[in-house]
Amino acid sequence: MKLGDRGRTVRLGIIGMGLRGVEQMKVLLPMEDVEIVAVCDVYQDRVKAAQKQTIDSGWPKPFGSTDWKEVLDMPEVEAVIIMTSWQTHVEIAVAAMEKGKLVGMDVGGASSVDECWQLVRACERTGVDLMFLENCCYNDVEMALLRMVREGVFGEIVHARGGYQHDLRDEIGNGDIIRHYRLDHFIHRNGDLYPTHELGPMASYLNLNRGNRMLSLVSMASKAVGQSLWMKEHRGDNPELQNIVFNQGDIVTTMIKCQNGETMVLTHDCNLPRPYSRSGYLQGTKGLWTEEGRQIHIEHISKPHHFESDKELLEKYEHPLWKEYREFGLRGGHGGMDYLVLRAFIESIQQGVPFPIDVYDAASWMVITALSEQSIAMGSMPVAIPDFTDGKWMKREKRPADKFSLDTIAWDKFESN
Amino acid sequence: MKLGDRGRTVRLGIIGMGLRGVEQMKVLLPMEDVEIVAVCDVYQDRVKAAQKQTIDSGWPKPFGSTDWKEVLDMPEVEAVIIMTSWQTHVEIAVAAMEKGKLVGMDVGGASSVDECWQLVRACERTGVDLMFLENCCYNDVEMALLRMVREGVFGEIVHARGGYQHDLRDEIGNGDIIRHYRLDHFIHRNGDLYPTHELGPMASYLNLNRGNRMLSLVSMASKAVGQSLWMKEHRGDNPELQNIVFNQGDIVTTMIKCQNGETMVLTHDCNLPRPYSRSGYLQGTKGLWTEEGRQIHIEHISKPHHFESDKELLEKYEHPLWKEYREFGLRGGHGGMDYLVLRAFIESIQQGVPFPIDVYDAASWMVITALSEQSIAMGSMPVAIPDFTDGKWMKREKRPADKFSLDTIAWDKFESN
Repeated sequence: MKLGDRGRTVRLGIIGMGLRGVEQMKVLLPMEDVEIVAVCDVYQDRVKAAQKQTIDSGWPKPFGSTDWKEVLDMPEVEAVIIMTSWQTHVEIAVAAMEKGKLVGMDVGGASSVDECWQLVRACERTGVDLMFLENCCYNDVEMALLRMVREGVFGEIVHARGGYQHDLRDEIGNGDIIRHYRLDHFIHRNGDLYPTHELGPMASYLNLNRGNRMLSLVSMASKAVGQSLWMKEHRGDNPELQNIVFNQGDIVTTMIKCQNGETMVLTHDCNLPRPYSRSGYLQGTKGLWTEEGRQIHIEHISKPHHFESDKELLEKYEHPLWKEYREFGLRGGHGGMDYLVLRAFIESIQQGVPFPIDVYDAASWMVITALSEQSIAMGSMPVAIPDFTDGKWMKREKRPADKFSLDTIAWDKFESN
Repeated sequence: MKLGDRGRTVRLGIIGMGLRGVEQMKVLLPMEDVEIVAVCDVYQDRVKAAQKQTIDSGWPKPFGSTDWKEVLDMPEVEAVIIMTSWQTHVEIAVAAMEKGKLVGMDVGGASSVDECWQLVRACERTGVDLMFLENCCYNDVEMALLRMVREGVFGEIVHARGGYQHDLRDEIGNGDIIRHYRLDHFIHRNGDLYPTHELGPMASYLNLNRGNRMLSLVSMASKAVGQSLWMKEHRGDNPELQNIVFNQGDIVTTMIKCQNGETMVLTHDCNLPRPYSRSGYLQGTKGLWTEEGRQIHIEHISKPHHFESDKELLEKYEHPLWKEYREFGLRGGHGGMDYLVLRAFIESIQQGVPFPIDVYDAASWMVITALSEQSIAMGSMPVAIPDFTDGKWMKREKRPADKFSLDTIAWDKFESN
């Protein structure tokens, strides 16, 4: 199948019509083989707006509800996409699998280790699959890097870094006004609240849950001063919020050790003024790439002891899916990757093949949040990362190309190394 | 005093005439107010070469010895510069202070916590001062950043990062041939072997030992594969070394928590192909600077959510010492900073004022090596960092400008914040 080809119609319920839900609905509505048959949000006005948006796009009016359980009871819903607040993802996903609905779950961090186990056990018990919708795994740069890793350009991978570094001070600080839940987390918690955008691609480079796994982590949090300062300067309208104490450290750093000896470093940085960057960094026995400055050095290719721009090499190793996608025409948010992750979800369903990012990935990536909180709470003690595969990681195949729904969404068809 | 002005003659003994000793002697020999009266190395050929080099520069032949104790017994030696192998620095420095010789000690990491205490106690007991010759504190970029910190450009400092990232595979791998001791450390140890080049400047930004201090650290090491691969490819001449097992992880990451809530992350990276970089990173409530890509973002100065080149701001905030130094003419190794750190040492002695980087700095920066080894050995457990000042850090003055030997070496005359 090629991008633009369309298969049988997949009927979706979308649960959670906040900023992210609306954004993703806009990507789904133009797809001829996707019908949104139900929309759901705790706020009635969002439900009505989503219904209107669907009708305006030429589709029948979807069922609307403020109770996600009603969506799960609909026989015409084959799969649900969960775009709700972080702390409700797992409850809804587990219930959906129990009702036999395939699940596309948006990213976020876990609140407890046990909820990650609940997710895994529900999937194993019901035999209903879940895809973790980590869009950054489908970004052009990350997919080119994955191809380079698979083709051995970096040699043996030793170390990777990345971060969720996003100045969210206004979104957090105005959380009560825009009905966004992030504010609660930053007031109350202290950990890496949102680790999967950088961790997802690294998990691919390092074959996590497929011949390798994360063993342990340690997290450390800086003081929390950035958001307080912002509140003092911007929220004079609400003295209670203006003077609120935040627990979330401005910079949370997490080191992770993998079974095959690699280390990873994650950074969470959302309360200080900064340009957005995931600050990717990938290093092996033959060279390294660094997102800051977009630089690369590969032994025997680059001038010794010098970086070069990554432009030429990333173009040379562009993933075939992205070549095709550029010809087809990029669409959807976040530089085009939102479209690809949703197509992977839809086409996996159409073809009845396993999702490329599955429940074990979801559990082991989300759990980093809960474990980083534990480590910080105990003064940066090391914490073990559970093996959610119960040992299956040793023999689980690397994702083979022919099991993917969209040929070129076989984002790791490069298995030569 | 201005750069180029000369004071009374300071008579030095130089102990350790390896790569670094020779390099620094070349910087010292043209100084009219410095006489090298003794040179010392365990290898006789190096002693003779150093004597010849001194004579060739128009100075009297210095005393030469393979026993550093003989140098310490010389009444004409006022101060010694210790440029020996890392693990001998402290023994020689302590003995020198006991003999009343002022000490300029080159950088390196400690082997034990206790040797750092020995250094501190010797200084306190004898009243003889020691300067830690951390040249990177005197680099143009770091000094401009320090000025920016002092003038509040970054707001309240929250986080800093840096690394010793230097592809030393050939130097390490040929250690037996070039008589360099690094090989031993990489075979046997596993920790951040060389933390002070990045930590020294951070210590200035964060006022460590002067109103702030390091509380604890956690270290994590990746697998050790880079140097082994190099040995296999390059040391066929020595099958024993070719197949040797290295303990030192290729990438060692260390997180440090400070009393005032800041965090720091250090990276040690010497066994993989890479261009040299200290990857400095400095972040506060008003913005951040990152060495990779040489980018900066300052709120209300930079375009919102965008980095800009750091060129303009670093020029604007160039340190007065560096302005003067550029007019005077840069000299010495490592981009000119070697000359400045040695002038600070010499002129502090001439003027009888405290050294700008003292024994408490030396102990607390060097101890990171020993503590990172402990943390890694215990599976990345947090380890407490001793307070080598015995509580004096709370009231110790920030380095005031007028106590510095060279007016403009008052590298933290910017104390307004």
